[in-house]
Amino acid sequence: MNYVRNCWYVAFWSHEVVQGTPASVTILGEPIAVYRGESGRLTALEDRCVHRLAPLSLGRCEGDRLRCMYHGLLYAPDGQVVDIPGQDIIPPHAKVRSYPIEERHGWIWIWMGDPQKADAELIPAAVGLDDPDFIMGSGALDYDAEAELINDNLLDFSHLSYVHADSFQSGPEFAERTPRITPLPRGIRYERWLENTLGSSTRRTPVPMDNFMTYDFVVPGILLMRSGTFPVGTAAQCEHQAPDFSRAERIHTFTSQAVTPISERKARYFFCWGPHRVYGDEAQRDMLLGLAAMAFDEDKRMIEAQQRIIDITPTPRIMPTAHDRSVTIFNRLVKSMIEQERHETLAEAR
Amino acid sequence: MNYVRNCWYVAFWSHEVVQGTPASVTILGEPIAVYRGESGRLTALEDRCVHRLAPLSLGRCEGDRLRCMYHGLLYAPDGQVVDIPGQDIIPPHAKVRSYPIEERHGWIWIWMGDPQKADAELIPAAVGLDDPDFIMGSGALDYDAEAELINDNLLDFSHLSYVHADSFQSGPEFAERTPRITPLPRGIRYERWLENTLGSSTRRTPVPMDNFMTYDFVVPGILLMRSGTFPVGTAAQCEHQAPDFSRAERIHTFTSQAVTPISERKARYFFCWGPHRVYGDEAQRDMLLGLAAMAFDEDKRMIEAQQRIIDITPTPRIMPTAHDRSVTIFNRLVKSMIEQERHETLAEAR
Amino acid sequence: MNYVRNCWYVAFWSHEVVQGTPASVTILGEPIAVYRGESGRLTALEDRCVHRLAPLSLGRCEGDRLRCMYHGLLYAPDGQVVDIPGQDIIPPHAKVRSYPIEERHGWIWIWMGDPQKADAELIPAAVGLDDPDFIMGSGALDYDAEAELINDNLLDFSHLSYVHADSFQSGPEFAERTPRITPLPRGIRYERWLENTLGSSTRRTPVPMDNFMTYDFVVPGILLMRSGTFPVGTAAQCEHQAPDFSRAERIHTFTSQAVTPISERKARYFFCWGPHRVYGDEAQRDMLLGLAAMAFDEDKRMIEAQQRIIDITPTPRIMPTAHDRSVTIFNRLVKSMIEQERHETLAEAR
Repeated sequence: MNYVRNCWYVAFWSHEVVQGTPASVTILGEPIAVYRGESGRLTALEDRCVHRLAPLSLGRCEGDRLRCMYHGLLYAPDGQVVDIPGQDIIPPHAKVRSYPIEERHGWIWIWMGDPQKADAELIPAAVGLDDPDFIMGSGALDYDAEAELINDNLLDFSHLSYVHADSFQSGPEFAERTPRITPLPRGIRYERWLENTLGSSTRRTPVPMDNFMTYDFVVPGILLMRSGTFPVGTAAQCEHQAPDFSRAERIHTFTSQAVTPISERKARYFFCWGPHRVYGDEAQRDMLLGLAAMAFDEDKRMIEAQQRIIDITPTPRIMPTAHDRSVTIFNRLVKSMIEQERHETLAEAR
Repeated sequence: MNYVRNCWYVAFWSHEVVQGTPASVTILGEPIAVYRGESGRLTALEDRCVHRLAPLSLGRCEGDRLRCMYHGLLYAPDGQVVDIPGQDIIPPHAKVRSYPIEERHGWIWIWMGDPQKADAELIPAAVGLDDPDFIMGSGALDYDAEAELINDNLLDFSHLSYVHADSFQSGPEFAERTPRITPLPRGIRYERWLENTLGSSTRRTPVPMDNFMTYDFVVPGILLMRSGTFPVGTAAQCEHQAPDFSRAERIHTFTSQAVTPISERKARYFFCWGPHRVYGDEAQRDMLLGLAAMAFDEDKRMIEAQQRIIDITPTPRIMPTAHDRSVTIFNRLVKSMIEQERHETLAEAR
Repeated sequence: MNYVRNCWYVAFWSHEVVQGTPASVTILGEPIAVYRGESGRLTALEDRCVHRLAPLSLGRCEGDRLRCMYHGLLYAPDGQVVDIPGQDIIPPHAKVRSYPIEERHGWIWIWMGDPQKADAELIPAAVGLDDPDFIMGSGALDYDAEAELINDNLLDFSHLSYVHADSFQSGPEFAERTPRITPLPRGIRYERWLENTLGSSTRRTPVPMDNFMTYDFVVPGILLMRSGTFPVGTAAQCEHQAPDFSRAERIHTFTSQAVTPISERKARYFFCWGPHRVYGDEAQRDMLLGLAAMAFDEDKRMIEAQQRIIDITPTPRIMPTAHDRSVTIFNRLVKSMIEQERHETLAEAR
């Protein structure tokens, strides 16, 4: 699996890990046991007992420690075995990997790379379920497809005109005109004005408005999108640059989405969406989540079908189009970051 | 997969491909999108967009063209891309394979080999659902088994005495005596007289008759069988050669069957069966289809079990018997046709 | 698959093979057809017809013979083909393997190794469903796990304190103190006294008793366990050696269990359990079977999860603990027996 390791992957919604009950997740093919101990502390351990490889996620929380429930070995949060029933001596190498873990924006994030390099400042600034300014709803989908294919999908919104013609009623503009794409240190920024329009199904207004939507898409696969409607003429006044969202009228929404590679050809897709509290209410949130449920099923159907075709193609080759600029920039960035990690690992090994 | 390519494979019943709705089929492991355009024209395209390998069978018919509904590339019936949304230039290599396709005898046939060699005259003379002289019913079964094993089954009717002892009540004759087998340019002919008999369940008569059944089995795996009953003594009068079917009394039926290799260890088995309009009616057709449903399930159960045993056998070897003569002739023919195709491909490559 | 071949594997409960109806079983990856002929004789044949590899277990019993129901070849109990319909000559090599088979203690046992070495005296002395002294109930579980992992589980009862904390309410003693382990020629013996106790859920008594439990675990994976309760002080009187079970008071039970490797990562687990007729009744048997159903599901959940972790671990390594002494002795014995078999096979080949 070819993904950046020195970054934060979304593992769970916060509410999925309840105190005292271990949970299991697989990221980049690595099984991980996650638990919230008695003190509230979150721990992420390699999900594989050193004794006979039973999963620790079937274990029992004892304080901030985790006991394997096959033959009783007890693990401290740093992964060290601290008790072996029936045996006095504990070998120092009786230790599993402990992953840096953080809870932020309503998600639980795990750092899959070098623990020394884990930097909480690199957690993308998602607007989460717990954000006081937005009224958010959420969902998740399990994909039988490589995470990279979902990333590609989210990087090229020209698919809205086709895949989501029914759900989002996106119209032909998304395919006919290319958006403004700007490289970022860890991803790309997408910006698009739609002028003098009644909007698609997610931004319908009773009178024509100028619509602006922008998202950052950053490693490993986090999409952070803000959309809003503005009086007609705003796009021109801004010279088609990004507007000041405090001047939005009628509609202002945010969606945070995360693609996590579970294992080869398996991925989990997390999303939340909702209006700014000043602009919308629970009914608008429910409308957005209803459309998202429909639209994200359309994506899943297409992408899993694409994966099945790729799987039976001896030497799969793609033919990029004009709309692939963002995909190309992002995948080139990912490739260079992976190269960089490889160099660092080799350098440290010397 | 070791099958002849320069021949016509049954892909669908005619009624399965409705105007304006693309269908998908896999033959010899190759995914194919089939659609009936606005003019009624049938097209079969490689089911794999040149852009990102999404299946065109999830696409939208536009006139006689097909638009990929992932990012909107439009394909002409010859496989050439003729529109890329958001992009002016279309590379000439933006093209997928287009397969020769024909509709005949109630089936849609696809030519899997060299398009230059596609010859509609090579479509076997099936009696189909649309035949005015016969009252036909139909069915299909999906097999978790290699198509070759189904062909072997259909080439050796000695299995009737065992596999179909209950359904067809075939009696021991099919195993005890070998039929007349005659090689054909693209298969074999099977002929058998059963004299002075009340017949098996598909040919039951109130008084003893002479029964004659004959089928051609031709590449890639098409069985065309005619059966009838004749006054006692007819077999002897004919010197046990084929009778004139216009002299049949009481019973005259036809069944067309097609075995299509989907992919490794996957096959689809199509069949229709019914009486000649002069000899039978809808009730007789329904009786035949009822027996066929029972009997073809018996075959499927046996052949899929055989496949599972083959799969766990390190070096599977068979031991042919006297009844395997037709199997041996046919498989030798297939082998020589495949050799021939390989030679031609090599010659053309030089 | 790395298992001893010169030993008896449990293939069926006796009642699973009814006269005249062939049954199928896979052991060590080898498909086997088992039938009880007209004379009552049991036969185990390689489940693979020499003709086209159809399974003989779909065949028809004729006397003590078995006819393949694909094209009618007839097999004698020694595996020799004795009839080929439509053909006069039977090649002498038309023969499948015939396995030594025995019925004893309510189970049908198959010898997977050299038939010359098959010795019914090596069948472990199980107390079976048909034992007149015990009131037995039975069950079976299919595992998606290597049989070896189930054997490991049964060899180390320290897991009772964790896996079966709820069902058997085993308490911490099983993990805190190691039992007496004695090597046997074909396995190990486990013995444990629990003194002055009201017992776990399977041996609950109204007054404190001394509990004794002992089992032999022998190749290929047969567990034979006797448990009983004795007046307090008996353990000390016996100097903590095995007691005379005729002096048991209140409780005396036996359980026979068998682990059969079906194929890679597939196993079947057979078990029966019940009280000695003098000590218990049908109600006690049903209580034991109820607890076993709960407990053996706990094992299965843990072991299948362990297998899944092993499967995704590039180089799985275990770290034995003090409780692994029995596991280590047994697996070393198995390894030496396999080595021995290999040497004998090589010697015979010279």
